[in-house]
Amino acid sequence: MKLLSFRYEDRTKFGPKVKREDAVWDVLSIAEEYGVADFPQTITEGISLGLDFVEKVRAIVEQALQDDNPNRFKYAFTEIEWLAPIPRTPKNVLCVGKNYADHVKEMGSDTPPEKLVVFTKSPLSIAADEEVLPIHADVTENLDYEGELAIVISKGGRHIPKQLAYDYIFGYTIANDVSARDIQMDHVQYFLGKTLDKSCPMGPYIVTKDEIPNPHNLSIVTKVNDEVRQNGNTGEMIFKIDELIAEISKYATLEPGDVILTGTPAGVGKGMTPPSFLRKGDTVKISIEGIGTLVNQFN
Amino acid sequence: MKLLSFRYEDRTKFGPKVKREDAVWDVLSIAEEYGVADFPQTITEGISLGLDFVEKVRAIVEQALQDDNPNRFKYAFTEIEWLAPIPRTPKNVLCVGKNYADHVKEMGSDTPPEKLVVFTKSPLSIAADEEVLPIHADVTENLDYEGELAIVISKGGRHIPKQLAYDYIFGYTIANDVSARDIQMDHVQYFLGKTLDKSCPMGPYIVTKDEIPNPHNLSIVTKVNDEVRQNGNTGEMIFKIDELIAEISKYATLEPGDVILTGTPAGVGKGMTPPSFLRKGDTVKISIEGIGTLVNQFN
Repeated sequence: MKLLSFRYEDRTKFGPKVKREDAVWDVLSIAEEYGVADFPQTITEGISLGLDFVEKVRAIVEQALQDDNPNRFKYAFTEIEWLAPIPRTPKNVLCVGKNYADHVKEMGSDTPPEKLVVFTKSPLSIAADEEVLPIHADVTENLDYEGELAIVISKGGRHIPKQLAYDYIFGYTIANDVSARDIQMDHVQYFLGKTLDKSCPMGPYIVTKDEIPNPHNLSIVTKVNDEVRQNGNTGEMIFKIDELIAEISKYATLEPGDVILTGTPAGVGKGMTPPSFLRKGDTVKISIEGIGTLVNQFN
Repeated sequence: MKLLSFRYEDRTKFGPKVKREDAVWDVLSIAEEYGVADFPQTITEGISLGLDFVEKVRAIVEQALQDDNPNRFKYAFTEIEWLAPIPRTPKNVLCVGKNYADHVKEMGSDTPPEKLVVFTKSPLSIAADEEVLPIHADVTENLDYEGELAIVISKGGRHIPKQLAYDYIFGYTIANDVSARDIQMDHVQYFLGKTLDKSCPMGPYIVTKDEIPNPHNLSIVTKVNDEVRQNGNTGEMIFKIDELIAEISKYATLEPGDVILTGTPAGVGKGMTPPSFLRKGDTVKISIEGIGTLVNQFN
């Protein structure tokens, strides 16, 4: 199932993409209309239920299909304002650095880190697919893209064993870990250079994990103005997804709706000769096989 | 005014310390009883109002004092479960590293950083005064204390000018930036070593800024089992509070209820010869002039 968040008539809503249509089911309206009392009121509340949430959403769409006029519960994509699938994470977005060997090299290191590198981005960095993002020329001249597979956590916990890690995942989405390289390097700790407003666009959908049986065999391609810059595969990750979840949760308690960015393949602007950073008007498109394409223009 | 958060009969509440008594006013109950409709329902909602919140709290206590039995709105400190003054920050706690020259030296650097070092701790790291904290022996042998002055942000914003920075502060509290040195160093980026559950006790109160006209003239003393380990003064900060707020908000948008830890003076366990880390049963007491004492035992 592909789930999205959106605004419609000033309300934040969520729902599944309608099959074979560029439209979304307004599941909250269906639940209200049919008096389904225990239906989750926010996407994060739903996600905490794991794949039971998917079943609840399926059941409510079935209900709508029995309605005399199911179309009243559907909105075309052109009618809604897209939001990031999780519009606000419960804490900072968790990010893994240096997790693809070729990217480690292009950033100037000979050897990959022995231990996981983890930093965070403010929830205010989250932005939507198709949203025009600030180029932040007032504070940086080195704004860069990083196409990444993002994991959406379903069940929270600490000390999650590697062999159970996938039980804690709700699904996957695409993220751009937009990075101000000058700020990131000057301040040594990455946070300030990684946390600019709207520097973490995500979307367009969460694809639930049942549709991605192997998340380590997905092509990931980033284009800037239609020029291919990153062309990798999630199989190249140094620390695999089960290791990431086990290692991060060894120290940090995870919660439903937390998002983990899994690192970026080679091909970022800073790694080019000479470096090529984002400019006003540039469009970045990140495509991950089986998930879709995240598109953002910078202005 | 000294404000605290607490639990009483399974409800999260907040209120001012009763003058000259070890007790708190239950302002939410007063507001309910007297039908004060616009009274903030959470401490963060109150804090977003700035010093108007202090006026509202004062007015409601005046109301209680006119009551036939004002004592029914007061609870002795022994009757309540203490919480951190802000039990959950809206995003990760913001922390400044290497902000006292002598501490920079004891950590092995010759020169202080030219640019601000900023990292974060999960909201789940927040703990209360007097709370017994985990020693985390399962993941670290190098748990260390860092006594710090913490700033509570009132008005959010970005690009806050240095000369207006104090307008954005609600008040001050005490924090212990508990740090697992082995994890912090092994993983290069500090987040994992700084984010263990309950590794950010804060409290006991927020002292509102009107009571601390000069936050750069406060003695700050940390004791481990009554042995003085840190004995500094907030005047020694390299980047002063107005600079911290201006510089952080140059990159990160601040929100009401955000907390900024301002760095620790010399005297941490890692800086001793030989290093001396926390052990099961140790009690850490951090006192800041004009604010109070934060006490936590580790177990």
